[in-house]
Amino acid sequence: MNQTAIQDLYADEHAHCFGCGRNNPHGLQLKSYWEGEECVCRHTPQNYYSGGVPGFLYGGMIASLLDCHAAATAAAAMARQKGELVGRFVTAALKVDFVKPTPLGVELELRARVSEIKGRKVTVDLQLLAGATLCATANIIMVQLVPTP
Amino acid sequence: MNQTAIQDLYADEHAHCFGCGRNNPHGLQLKSYWEGEECVCRHTPQNYYSGGVPGFLYGGMIASLLDCHAAATAAAAMARQKGELVGRFVTAALKVDFVKPTPLGVELELRARVSEIKGRKVTVDLQLLAGATLCATANIIMVQLVPTP
Repeated sequence: MNQTAIQDLYADEHAHCFGCGRNNPHGLQLKSYWEGEECVCRHTPQNYYSGGVPGFLYGGMIASLLDCHAAATAAAAMARQKGELVGRFVTAALKVDFVKPTPLGVELELRARVSEIKGRKVTVDLQLLAGATLCATANIIMVQLVPTP
Repeated sequence: MNQTAIQDLYADEHAHCFGCGRNNPHGLQLKSYWEGEECVCRHTPQNYYSGGVPGFLYGGMIASLLDCHAAATAAAAMARQKGELVGRFVTAALKVDFVKPTPLGVELELRARVSEIKGRKVTVDLQLLAGATLCATANIIMVQLVPTP
């Protein structure tokens, strides 16, 4: 992968997120990349992020992966549209539909498409896949942080 | 607190969740209790669950706390209505609205009410508060696992 991950373009002061911040040594350090019109992130969660039943990922981590990947997708899409540096987005609203149990022990793929950019707001539609199995879908509204002067 | 936490009534084989399972030594071990018609959980996240900017909780953990507390609320409400033992619920759909940034370093309060019980499905409305500040709201649909024969 020769591309720079979107999260590695965040300003240093905005790179502390547990999910995706390169400056958070305790965190997951998720990395997202463009693949054509889709933004993609691959991640294999640790087995201790189990749901109630061992062998399956817990719902909170499913939401976490989708949320951080949506933030990166929104930031990259806005930067591309405006020809600006990648900014930082925070979540306004998150909706996840859990389609099938998400297995642990396999690499998961998150695929995201931007459905709307309106002012500082970007809407992102996502899928979480384990191999060919669609495990969850999401619709997430992200809002760009106003840069501090 | 003399009540037993709802999560401590889950069957041993369903108590491995990273968010709320007493059998997950790596996890948060959230505990939820009835307070009248509301179900309440209090938790102080570790500082490394930061969002992009230090000092605030990341969106994924906000969703995680709401999700696990909704599962407990649904399980307890169904058990109370049917006069049965507490079962185990999984998430069908989760919607979170992020109202204000959620601070780190303070105890957070999750308050939940059941708005509907229909068949095996329970709908839960939740608030996440930091002191008197409403930081997030959620609407979560939980579905009861069918017991294995």
